[in-house]
Amino acid sequence: MLVVGSIALDSVQTPFGAAQEVLGGAAVFAAAAASFFAPVRMVGVVGTDFPREHLRRLQQWDIDVSGVEVREGQTFRWSGYYEYDLNQAHTVATHLNVFEDFRPDLPRTYCCTPYVFLANIDPELQAAVLDQVETPRLTVCDTMNFWISGKRDALLAVLARVDVALMNDAEARQLCDTPSLVQAARRILDLGPRAVVLKKGEHGAAMFTRDGHFAAPGYPLEQIKDPTGAGDAFAGGLVGYLAYTDDFSDDNLRKAIICGSVVASFNVEDFSLERLARLTPNEIVERYRQFRAMTDFGSM
Amino acid sequence: MLVVGSIALDSVQTPFGAAQEVLGGAAVFAAAAASFFAPVRMVGVVGTDFPREHLRRLQQWDIDVSGVEVREGQTFRWSGYYEYDLNQAHTVATHLNVFEDFRPDLPRTYCCTPYVFLANIDPELQAAVLDQVETPRLTVCDTMNFWISGKRDALLAVLARVDVALMNDAEARQLCDTPSLVQAARRILDLGPRAVVLKKGEHGAAMFTRDGHFAAPGYPLEQIKDPTGAGDAFAGGLVGYLAYTDDFSDDNLRKAIICGSVVASFNVEDFSLERLARLTPNEIVERYRQFRAMTDFGSM
Repeated sequence: MLVVGSIALDSVQTPFGAAQEVLGGAAVFAAAAASFFAPVRMVGVVGTDFPREHLRRLQQWDIDVSGVEVREGQTFRWSGYYEYDLNQAHTVATHLNVFEDFRPDLPRTYCCTPYVFLANIDPELQAAVLDQVETPRLTVCDTMNFWISGKRDALLAVLARVDVALMNDAEARQLCDTPSLVQAARRILDLGPRAVVLKKGEHGAAMFTRDGHFAAPGYPLEQIKDPTGAGDAFAGGLVGYLAYTDDFSDDNLRKAIICGSVVASFNVEDFSLERLARLTPNEIVERYRQFRAMTDFGSM
Repeated sequence: MLVVGSIALDSVQTPFGAAQEVLGGAAVFAAAAASFFAPVRMVGVVGTDFPREHLRRLQQWDIDVSGVEVREGQTFRWSGYYEYDLNQAHTVATHLNVFEDFRPDLPRTYCCTPYVFLANIDPELQAAVLDQVETPRLTVCDTMNFWISGKRDALLAVLARVDVALMNDAEARQLCDTPSLVQAARRILDLGPRAVVLKKGEHGAAMFTRDGHFAAPGYPLEQIKDPTGAGDAFAGGLVGYLAYTDDFSDDNLRKAIICGSVVASFNVEDFSLERLARLTPNEIVERYRQFRAMTDFGSM
């Protein structure tokens, strides 16, 4: 599975602690989450200041980092904080640094990767990645409000080329200019994707396909330490599970959404990748089982 | 089943239309919703200006209105509007009128009602109702932020006396001064109720009991016309189903939450009670089935 996106050094403050210059970025969270299900190839860019141990750590998780370019300059940095409403990130500073001129150039060995996850980056770069992969079995893209308002046409063109479109519920409403999620999802499906997956933070996720609708709750967390990367870990777990099973039926897409939710629910229990670093496959299986137990109800 | 709460004339504006001086109030929405499952007895107060046809309409739904007091003066009036974020009601005016001096006085025939729903009113009045009912089989109370900040001790005393506590998720966090819903729910359970049901608007509902957690999604609505009364219709459907089945097991509480969600999802499709007036039992059964279909997923 291929993951393309940002690699960052994050400085985060939450009501439950703080972390300085820790490993972050959408591609990192997604790749780490996916690595529980499938081998991952990563494409991104870091500066010469990027600590070597971070790359080694990713490699230990069976993540191929030969597509991570090291450029003269500083690594992308993000700093921000969360207040008690953990759904809302407050950005203090974004320094794109070497990420500003990121032009994804896939190693030749990556070009036949069957499963492709385009994390949230400029849709023109997402399109450039799609140009470089040969007949992928499944393509999934994430996006955000910044591109919806700033590069709308390029984004619509990418949505027309992917199998699964991922975004926040508010972003789907914004993209389609309607308060109705059902109508928004239908319009996105009309662009081409076979599934639209809407991320709703602590409220879970929803999926719309031509055949129906799936609603997954959020996992009720006892202790959230840092929500950073939750959406990316969700996406990584989702695509990783699809790569592992190679089954894109509605039924299996549902399971993939729960797998993504499970990994994301662990990710927020600590800063950076700390929780995923301790996570075991057994814990994933057990929490998946809890998801089933907590959503089950009988006939009327 | 007994329902105690406000009876109002509402004036509402939403992005999808407006309604002037229409039948509303928590007790009305709850009673109407519950009437699909069980006969209802209603306690409330209206002014001499209250249109007679409203009472006749409620009676047509098998709602006993002999506990509705008609007082010299004006009926409680609420006016407000919603913008595109339909989760957020903006109040323009609240005129309590005769509701200001509401002192629920149960007709003698009501005192042995086995199922009691205390809609959102002053917790001192909720306690006064509990004093008047004889060994009820199940008591359920709703509340709101106004009482959490203004009559905290009285509210805690009511929570200690009911079987099921109902409130919004934000209100549970406020009541227990914690961002964690899990911790908030646990603290409320510690007060006495066997179940805490948290309403999350379009995001559905969650239930916490000593044995576990249940998460119900919101129904993805094609067309919401007016969210007024959704939480009350949810409560009415929930308690109505429990009254109908007389089974308070965790499994049946889950089904009751879905029944509440189903009726609430219909209620918001039109203003006032317009949609419930057209609602058929078959539609309830069919949407319940859709809830099952949209939350179902297989083992990993």
